[in-house]
Amino acid sequence: MAESSWLERPGLDKAAGEEFLREAFQVLLDEAVRKGTDVTEKVGETRRPPARWWGGTERGSLPDRGRIPFPPSPQVCDWKEPQELRELLDLELRSSGELPERLLERCRDVIRYSVKTCHPRFFNQLFSGLDHHALAGRLITETLNTSQYTYEIAPVFVLMEEVVLAKLRELVGWSSGDGIFCPGGSISNMYAMNVARFHHFPESRQKGSWALPRLALFTSRESHYSIQKGAAFLGIGTDNVHLVGTDERGKMIPEELEKEIQRVKAEGAKPFFVCATCGTTVLGAFDPLDGIADICQRHGLWFHVDAAWGGSALLSSKHRHLLTGIERADSVAWNPHKMLTVGLQCSAFLLRDTSGLLQRCHGAGATYLFQPDKFYDVTYDTGDKTLQCGRRVDCLKLWLLWKAAGTEGLARRVERAFAYTRYLAKEVKRRDGFQLVLEVAPAIKERMMRKGSMMVGYQPHGARVNFFRQIVTNPTVTKDDLDFFLDEIERLGQDL
Amino acid sequence: MAESSWLERPGLDKAAGEEFLREAFQVLLDEAVRKGTDVTEKVGETRRPPARWWGGTERGSLPDRGRIPFPPSPQVCDWKEPQELRELLDLELRSSGELPERLLERCRDVIRYSVKTCHPRFFNQLFSGLDHHALAGRLITETLNTSQYTYEIAPVFVLMEEVVLAKLRELVGWSSGDGIFCPGGSISNMYAMNVARFHHFPESRQKGSWALPRLALFTSRESHYSIQKGAAFLGIGTDNVHLVGTDERGKMIPEELEKEIQRVKAEGAKPFFVCATCGTTVLGAFDPLDGIADICQRHGLWFHVDAAWGGSALLSSKHRHLLTGIERADSVAWNPHKMLTVGLQCSAFLLRDTSGLLQRCHGAGATYLFQPDKFYDVTYDTGDKTLQCGRRVDCLKLWLLWKAAGTEGLARRVERAFAYTRYLAKEVKRRDGFQLVLEVAPAIKERMMRKGSMMVGYQPHGARVNFFRQIVTNPTVTKDDLDFFLDEIERLGQDL
Repeated sequence: MAESSWLERPGLDKAAGEEFLREAFQVLLDEAVRKGTDVTEKVGETRRPPARWWGGTERGSLPDRGRIPFPPSPQVCDWKEPQELRELLDLELRSSGELPERLLERCRDVIRYSVKTCHPRFFNQLFSGLDHHALAGRLITETLNTSQYTYEIAPVFVLMEEVVLAKLRELVGWSSGDGIFCPGGSISNMYAMNVARFHHFPESRQKGSWALPRLALFTSRESHYSIQKGAAFLGIGTDNVHLVGTDERGKMIPEELEKEIQRVKAEGAKPFFVCATCGTTVLGAFDPLDGIADICQRHGLWFHVDAAWGGSALLSSKHRHLLTGIERADSVAWNPHKMLTVGLQCSAFLLRDTSGLLQRCHGAGATYLFQPDKFYDVTYDTGDKTLQCGRRVDCLKLWLLWKAAGTEGLARRVERAFAYTRYLAKEVKRRDGFQLVLEVAPAIKERMMRKGSMMVGYQPHGARVNFFRQIVTNPTVTKDDLDFFLDEIERLGQDL
Repeated sequence: MAESSWLERPGLDKAAGEEFLREAFQVLLDEAVRKGTDVTEKVGETRRPPARWWGGTERGSLPDRGRIPFPPSPQVCDWKEPQELRELLDLELRSSGELPERLLERCRDVIRYSVKTCHPRFFNQLFSGLDHHALAGRLITETLNTSQYTYEIAPVFVLMEEVVLAKLRELVGWSSGDGIFCPGGSISNMYAMNVARFHHFPESRQKGSWALPRLALFTSRESHYSIQKGAAFLGIGTDNVHLVGTDERGKMIPEELEKEIQRVKAEGAKPFFVCATCGTTVLGAFDPLDGIADICQRHGLWFHVDAAWGGSALLSSKHRHLLTGIERADSVAWNPHKMLTVGLQCSAFLLRDTSGLLQRCHGAGATYLFQPDKFYDVTYDTGDKTLQCGRRVDCLKLWLLWKAAGTEGLARRVERAFAYTRYLAKEVKRRDGFQLVLEVAPAIKERMMRKGSMMVGYQPHGARVNFFRQIVTNPTVTKDDLDFFLDEIERLGQDL
């Protein structure tokens, strides 16, 4: 085609595009939203299990395993080995485009072989479940496709982010402050470390670490690994992360923190930052914030709370006592995409500061984006508070969910999750044989994945062997699903 | 409600949720996709312009401004001052939830007052336009809501990311290598700086900057501001970012780079990293990569190319010469969400390295996620290569677009963009008065925003006054839209 003819016409067919979008939405509604959340739905073809599933080597060598279930109905995942899946998907990118029918087939396959994280028997991660209102917010976000840097380009979302962050701060116990949504809790934690460093040593921004004494930061040995990653990335070094001892429930021991600070000071390093955790990743422990706050105050250290997982407990008047003292923090990381089913990613970094520290720490004032001669109040151009340039809109999904459920509805979700945890703990104690299970977690996990009936994470912990970590925040989970979880572990592990 | 009754029932109404989702999709299709891309559509109520729009102070004081247009039909944006918009939207989050009808009304309002970045007359940012296939990929991504860390939880997307990254590397000129999608180009550039530091000084990860000589890095004075932000965040310090001189087109002058390296070395600092830019933010300049690569090779420096904007020119056999030498880079940042209309965010960080440098630099090996005793090949658990823990799926939207358009179709889009640039340059030269316009950019910008007829960015550059930066990558843009752009600037600026 000659170039001149291009110039007269759009480069894509809008009507055909809209038709495709409509059909793709129907596919995702049927295959992902409806079937993906239905415990009675059988997805995937009916099939004999591969012989290797049972440790057999020949076709038809299936031994009699009594109550061990035959796996015809993957629901949560349809497990394929990487090579097999690669062949099924035909991922290669070629010169020519494909027809809409073929593309819709591809959409179906992508959904089919993906894990249904919205399924009531998906317990594998700290996020799970699907909230339809939050999802609607996400679809609108994707369609509007703007970047959260200036009022000019994201007027609705600049104001909305302000309101949502203020509401989260209010739950923390602050009537003022600052904040920003970050691409995940790890980066929120890193923001905290960087702002703390800048607060103590403003010259760090220009001169780097060479101008500073050797810094030291403190977190419990149960804390999230992003603290280590952050220390490496920020040029602080993992050797300067001091892991403080915890009690048998996984909570930081304040006396150990005090001792560690003294020791590090005596060695000539400069403590500047303490990270407490509310909801540790493996055990779900809440550090004693008041005791830690006292120590931070005494030594003049920045007090950060990583409440990525546990922050949502602040919504419940019944459970918010777990975070007593959080109002004394200098900064908080809180991921509503976990317990509140908002959808990846929605991670708030909150600050008590009202002096513009975040902006001074991160701002670069690029004149092509943050022109000072704009015709409106440029304090609404909040994008320079971040490390990013383009930044996704993460507030709409949480805002729409909140408008739909109300604070009360969100509180009830949190309370459900705690109630289920109690139920499950009681049931595990009641059932014989669950101690035994702990030693065979990887084998049971393999059987569960190949069957696709449910997903739950496992990990070792200190000297303890591998065990399952069960998470029950998905609002569609009921007692039946938890009973299924326990029964299924018994079934899968019976012969081990 | 008593707690025991909760336990028996799901915490949300799935049927009502699906119905809401279906209706919300219809709203986004009608209001955002269809009207948002239609140049003939009139959105917003018919209204008299506020008096202040014309500089008047009283109702009805509209002066006769000849050809200056009356603004009844905002299309790209429906400008409201922050306070006015806050009142229109009722953003407050309350205790009780709202009914579906009210929530759908809210969805309509969010769309109505948001900027239509998909509109053919939105030229304000390096991203613009809407590709329906990419959008379908984004909607499916949101619905599946998984995190790209392990094969277990994202089997399809682990394999898909591998294929997409390999394809991008192939276009760079590498038959092997490594990479990862990052939350934006700024963070991709920071990954490059961190990997380069780790490559030169592996001890930096544990010991921090104190164990290293004072580092120095180099980039042109036209480079993106994320290099400065990254130097501050990584503990390197902005003083150690050396801005190299550029020619009148904005390209780095290799001789200046050489001189600067010599000077910095003589001062006792340790050069380790050079960032070249392909497609600078304001002028769109491509640095001479071969000349820069020679210098990096001679001094043993990490050679990073920030091709966030310009990388997509590699798809066109006609224009890829602009990036000659990119194959000699150690790392490349490339954002398909810009020129390829994939949607925010899709930012690839690509590496030539095949030794696992990225994993060694960033990996933390958290045992709750990256268990070494899994039943499948854990090299597919690629999540530990990143700084993040949870990581959004950014590959599907690009993969689906690529399957739909083919490499040829993508190449044609790039070529359209270059052809329109030539057309526009020719027209600007042909029309009288466009020099004059440069001095009144902020005033014209204000009028354009209040009218809502189009959006284009402006900025100063060095000693030059504010000017408009026009971007023409949206595939639905035609010559008519560019003619409109020029006519509209004339109209808006006529009396200035």
